[in-house]
Amino acid sequence: MITDSQIERWLREDLGHHDVTNQVPGETTGRLLATEAGVAAGIDPAARVFEYLGASVTDRLESGTSVDPGDELLAVSGSTRAVLRGERVAVNLVGHASGVATRTREAVDRASEAAADVRIAATRKTTPGLRGLEKRAVVAGGGDTHRLDLSHMVMVKDNHVAELGLEGAIEHVADRVSFATKIEAEVERPVDAPTAAAAGADVVLLDNMDPETVRSALETLSEAGHEDVLTEASGGITLESVAEYAATGVDVVSMGSLTHSAPSLDLSFRTGG
Amino acid sequence: MITDSQIERWLREDLGHHDVTNQVPGETTGRLLATEAGVAAGIDPAARVFEYLGASVTDRLESGTSVDPGDELLAVSGSTRAVLRGERVAVNLVGHASGVATRTREAVDRASEAAADVRIAATRKTTPGLRGLEKRAVVAGGGDTHRLDLSHMVMVKDNHVAELGLEGAIEHVADRVSFATKIEAEVERPVDAPTAAAAGADVVLLDNMDPETVRSALETLSEAGHEDVLTEASGGITLESVAEYAATGVDVVSMGSLTHSAPSLDLSFRTGG
Amino acid sequence: MITDSQIERWLREDLGHHDVTNQVPGETTGRLLATEAGVAAGIDPAARVFEYLGASVTDRLESGTSVDPGDELLAVSGSTRAVLRGERVAVNLVGHASGVATRTREAVDRASEAAADVRIAATRKTTPGLRGLEKRAVVAGGGDTHRLDLSHMVMVKDNHVAELGLEGAIEHVADRVSFATKIEAEVERPVDAPTAAAAGADVVLLDNMDPETVRSALETLSEAGHEDVLTEASGGITLESVAEYAATGVDVVSMGSLTHSAPSLDLSFRTGG
Amino acid sequence: MITDSQIERWLREDLGHHDVTNQVPGETTGRLLATEAGVAAGIDPAARVFEYLGASVTDRLESGTSVDPGDELLAVSGSTRAVLRGERVAVNLVGHASGVATRTREAVDRASEAAADVRIAATRKTTPGLRGLEKRAVVAGGGDTHRLDLSHMVMVKDNHVAELGLEGAIEHVADRVSFATKIEAEVERPVDAPTAAAAGADVVLLDNMDPETVRSALETLSEAGHEDVLTEASGGITLESVAEYAATGVDVVSMGSLTHSAPSLDLSFRTGG
Amino acid sequence: MITDSQIERWLREDLGHHDVTNQVPGETTGRLLATEAGVAAGIDPAARVFEYLGASVTDRLESGTSVDPGDELLAVSGSTRAVLRGERVAVNLVGHASGVATRTREAVDRASEAAADVRIAATRKTTPGLRGLEKRAVVAGGGDTHRLDLSHMVMVKDNHVAELGLEGAIEHVADRVSFATKIEAEVERPVDAPTAAAAGADVVLLDNMDPETVRSALETLSEAGHEDVLTEASGGITLESVAEYAATGVDVVSMGSLTHSAPSLDLSFRTGG
Amino acid sequence: MITDSQIERWLREDLGHHDVTNQVPGETTGRLLATEAGVAAGIDPAARVFEYLGASVTDRLESGTSVDPGDELLAVSGSTRAVLRGERVAVNLVGHASGVATRTREAVDRASEAAADVRIAATRKTTPGLRGLEKRAVVAGGGDTHRLDLSHMVMVKDNHVAELGLEGAIEHVADRVSFATKIEAEVERPVDAPTAAAAGADVVLLDNMDPETVRSALETLSEAGHEDVLTEASGGITLESVAEYAATGVDVVSMGSLTHSAPSLDLSFRTGG
Repeated sequence: MITDSQIERWLREDLGHHDVTNQVPGETTGRLLATEAGVAAGIDPAARVFEYLGASVTDRLESGTSVDPGDELLAVSGSTRAVLRGERVAVNLVGHASGVATRTREAVDRASEAAADVRIAATRKTTPGLRGLEKRAVVAGGGDTHRLDLSHMVMVKDNHVAELGLEGAIEHVADRVSFATKIEAEVERPVDAPTAAAAGADVVLLDNMDPETVRSALETLSEAGHEDVLTEASGGITLESVAEYAATGVDVVSMGSLTHSAPSLDLSFRTGG
Repeated sequence: MITDSQIERWLREDLGHHDVTNQVPGETTGRLLATEAGVAAGIDPAARVFEYLGASVTDRLESGTSVDPGDELLAVSGSTRAVLRGERVAVNLVGHASGVATRTREAVDRASEAAADVRIAATRKTTPGLRGLEKRAVVAGGGDTHRLDLSHMVMVKDNHVAELGLEGAIEHVADRVSFATKIEAEVERPVDAPTAAAAGADVVLLDNMDPETVRSALETLSEAGHEDVLTEASGGITLESVAEYAATGVDVVSMGSLTHSAPSLDLSFRTGG
Repeated sequence: MITDSQIERWLREDLGHHDVTNQVPGETTGRLLATEAGVAAGIDPAARVFEYLGASVTDRLESGTSVDPGDELLAVSGSTRAVLRGERVAVNLVGHASGVATRTREAVDRASEAAADVRIAATRKTTPGLRGLEKRAVVAGGGDTHRLDLSHMVMVKDNHVAELGLEGAIEHVADRVSFATKIEAEVERPVDAPTAAAAGADVVLLDNMDPETVRSALETLSEAGHEDVLTEASGGITLESVAEYAATGVDVVSMGSLTHSAPSLDLSFRTGG
Repeated sequence: MITDSQIERWLREDLGHHDVTNQVPGETTGRLLATEAGVAAGIDPAARVFEYLGASVTDRLESGTSVDPGDELLAVSGSTRAVLRGERVAVNLVGHASGVATRTREAVDRASEAAADVRIAATRKTTPGLRGLEKRAVVAGGGDTHRLDLSHMVMVKDNHVAELGLEGAIEHVADRVSFATKIEAEVERPVDAPTAAAAGADVVLLDNMDPETVRSALETLSEAGHEDVLTEASGGITLESVAEYAATGVDVVSMGSLTHSAPSLDLSFRTGG
Repeated sequence: MITDSQIERWLREDLGHHDVTNQVPGETTGRLLATEAGVAAGIDPAARVFEYLGASVTDRLESGTSVDPGDELLAVSGSTRAVLRGERVAVNLVGHASGVATRTREAVDRASEAAADVRIAATRKTTPGLRGLEKRAVVAGGGDTHRLDLSHMVMVKDNHVAELGLEGAIEHVADRVSFATKIEAEVERPVDAPTAAAAGADVVLLDNMDPETVRSALETLSEAGHEDVLTEASGGITLESVAEYAATGVDVVSMGSLTHSAPSLDLSFRTGG
Repeated sequence: MITDSQIERWLREDLGHHDVTNQVPGETTGRLLATEAGVAAGIDPAARVFEYLGASVTDRLESGTSVDPGDELLAVSGSTRAVLRGERVAVNLVGHASGVATRTREAVDRASEAAADVRIAATRKTTPGLRGLEKRAVVAGGGDTHRLDLSHMVMVKDNHVAELGLEGAIEHVADRVSFATKIEAEVERPVDAPTAAAAGADVVLLDNMDPETVRSALETLSEAGHEDVLTEASGGITLESVAEYAATGVDVVSMGSLTHSAPSLDLSFRTGG
């Protein structure tokens, strides 16, 4: 949920104390158009920016829709002052979110050719202040949010393991988290994967492994009778390598670059008429 | 300036209501390391994240410093809980800001080979909530912030011009802005550039022109005796074309992609020891 | 995490614009003491209230510790003004959180006599603004947080079921949530429990059933080979009936009253000396 | 006054970053119903929660109205998403406030049988963040808010008295507070009551006295010609003892438990139709 | 209480996104000096501005102290960046608050020559956002805060009176406010003053009366045996007329101009050394 | 831009927790009237206060309009509760802003008799929290905002000059600021003015000079061929001396007193009818 307080902060950041060129009387309309192909996202927050300023939203595309150059994502109508004031923040929001959605769609498309059911997931490597926006943009692109915050799914990491051993660490965490929370355990060698599954991990994270090693870990799990545990490959996976990882049969491939390195989608905003 | 309120919002966004795996006793240290080459930025806000949580900053690199893989950007020390809690937000901040700085440095380097004095500037196409962080990262990379918000420098745009003519529009604005504020006028044809300069524009924006047309506009200005007015080229300029624009002799080349499409710099955070 | 912004709001709410009687020079100490038996919680936020005001925390009890009348939960030292200003907010926080922890401990104790491994869980029926404080107080009392917010674990409820059937509804949700998120399905009749488990629910909520019906649902699950699915009983369960529910063998017994109806623990705050 | 900022905080706390099960198209209605008897309060803030989300309030009960099981407190209509999102926060608000109002009404009813004009007052022992909500709920139940914050009425307490004597302390405070502010002086022995009244206290607080001692203090005041000064009994007074205190003839009986220990009123929220 | 959130807002408002001239390395000191005579106020909030920025306060004058040109009000020490950043906000705070205190002192001095015990009070005509600062500055100048907000003391005004009559209106309000709250009734004719007192008003407001009429109202009260009720004269009273009003014997003279029209005290801030 | 968050803070500050006298049923109207002559400002923020509370604005004067006693600035209509609650904040805002506008208009009128084109400018000596409101009020009065914040125009001050010399300091700053930012250099002697202009200052600040010295500095500039550089006179300039400064031919006369010492404009608010 985008709140009015966020919208206020974004508008103040862009307007400053006295935005002379927006002091224009009259009414106008505005249309947000794609100028390159991609996947639309961030439409609802952009619409709320205009509504906060008192303008009306006359049309909007649903997040997740593919767009081509010239397609309209959002149409607004209201006082010229409101439309001009909202323009830059709205374009920046939609450009950023759509960039994330477009990058996600591309990763999903590449991966699903290699493996129909694989999930392409984001990480916690998001832009500070925009976690929710970016996670929802990943969903708009066909991806999986992965955990939303540190309280959502717990991760048993190497520092826990160093102290208690893999099995001990998972049991230690299981004693402390809610039944509502999944447990994911990070393993660095294929041989550890069945141990994690046996100790109660809901998800086994195959961290920084090349595709061949991932494949080996999956086989090791299968041989140990843990083919049902969820598996995730993560660590430096790019658009170029995503299909190769997907082809291993892993359940989830996660990529930080979906959120922290997606270029903005090109848009233009036309007023008047 | 990054405020405590921002830091709180960023931490809450990442931690959620009950971050079980951070409930670890004892003290530890943490080091933020580059894992690829680039330009460091966002160090001070990241340092403040740890300070807010009660940890101490024991070492920090100055923003704008070039880094190679393995270089340390920030070192902290404190309760394990504080260090673990601050890690993800700090990495996300520095990764994002350093990505902007790195992209800016690359644009500056390319441009300055073509023209020693050209300025590479950002735009208002920034990530909502991070305007200041990104503008300062541009400076860290050797770039120019351009206007910080709508109240900083006023822009005479085509909708003003349509109504009052270029000359009339500039005079209209000059009557309404402070003496402390520069006026930039957007022109779409070289022939309009001297008119803008004569009417009192401090900066003439040559918008969406190819390098040849920019060159022609600069000559037109020079012939009309306006070689002293500042000129800016803008619109779809990329890392590939920035040198060509710089070579025209324009004063400023601005690029939205510095802030809205720079990939994050790869970093790692090591705790313990 | 309790933020400075929350502490500021709580202090302003209690102090008003001009708190004459706190304008006292000098230094003092303050001790927060239990005046009835219970379980301590909320100590850290209370400590932060005093730290925000510039006082020092000289001693503190760990949350989850049992206390008897006269036991000290927190000791502070600083300017008289700071100690007096923080007193009421600190007492209210610790009283409220300890009340929740104490009530939880009592429920846990009654349940664990009937079934050693049952979990006593809270719900989302928390006091607006204090979700995190209350969930952590439940943990301090030996309980389970249950889901922290609507994004943590998804619940398939009767309105979804009415439209798509139980199986269809669970599959519909499973298609839309992250692999990181557990799915809980609400059933109203024992006969529906195996259907929910078969359709992929991680947890089956046995809603508003008397203990006998819960037992019957568990048997139905067991007979269908789903003895491993997690089960939760919920709906009007009180301190009086919690043991009876625990005795059914259900995994989780959840009680809204842990957070919304726990009386505050009696405390006193002594200054000076 | 409940502000939009509070509503935003409460909603974010409950929704998290991505509340999948609320992503439901269409329109619906919602009705908030009592499932036990009590006194309604908190209706206006709950209504504002739905309005903030864009839903309409179609009917609402006035705060202070007695309700029986099945009575409707609030009816809303709007997008299914808005109604589902607001439900939990609204129920928690009304349940908590109505719990306070119901407890207050019970105390008032018991006291007024013993003494028609006695006031039953709350204290500053309120839930952090909800001072105003709880004080208004006390009023809805027929009680008296007592002082709203530390700046509202000043209290001369034992630490002042220890230093300056009772008389000196009251005069010291009277010199420092506004003429707009009442002064209440805490006395621990009946014999001190007339001294406080004579020194200018508007209210004499008979602290931690049993009913018999309260009666004795009132007589002492009366004998000294101070029968007109307001008197308040406070300290550990319960629903069981409130009538006995009321019967002493004291003007005000204050009870922290009205706000810090009132169980929530049971409610249900029905959507659809 | 001034909160960090306020300080952040004030600093952001003054600094903008990138304050180049404050990017100065090294350490410095700063001294805030009076350049005209007056009464110091607002020192503590100004000190907190510097502390928020990480500078240390090395000396401070107590609010309420009279100053002459050259007197030091505050001395700080720290990084040059912190001292420069805090300067303008600190000077604006102290200048504004000291202006209010100085104006108040002058009114108090003039009044007390005419009547030793009269109180000079502010009103609710304060600058939005600075109610507490201004009320405390009034106290620093020797004045009375009057009511701090609408919930502090209730005012029975002409619109209530029009409907219920003066007596009825006072009784109506008395039924609805806490025993902790004083009641002030506004009267427009001397003849109404005893009615207000008899009906239970704690304070009688003699609104918009000239001094002669005030005197007449006081006599009317006295004749009716209400010489003990508090009386306040208000409405258009200036520094020129305050003594004349004080001489009538009224208890309180209130002046909106103390807060809304006091010129700032001239100060200078010297760095370095 | 005034945000809802500001309005909330202002309303809470004035209302407190429980504003009994505003709990009035029914509908009413309200009219804000001038009771002395001046220039209206702050109307839009005041209108938004009422709109936030749910009342409608039925008429409003444009900021910058001259008013006489009895002229209506704003008319509202809505629930009695909303109109009463908004009254005091709205009056305080308009009174303060109109005071600034009125003082500015007077300075402008006095100056323009002496020099038709001189600009009367405000400074950064504004009331913390109200920078934008006051700057816009200065514009409403016919004045110039001067720089809005420290990032808007940079000032080369004596501490920079002491270290690097005037020329060096200006060049140092010019290397660090954006091309979008003007540079103003402070000079204390007429002889330094041409140096500043030659070094690239956009504006030369003639600080703390008497009119005769200002005139001498302007002549020095003119003789050195710098008659086109903008000049500003500042430092202790009052309504009494503003015309004399304007007559020197300086471009800008700035006065801190426009914002920090303007008395509030007298207004009254009438409800009902």
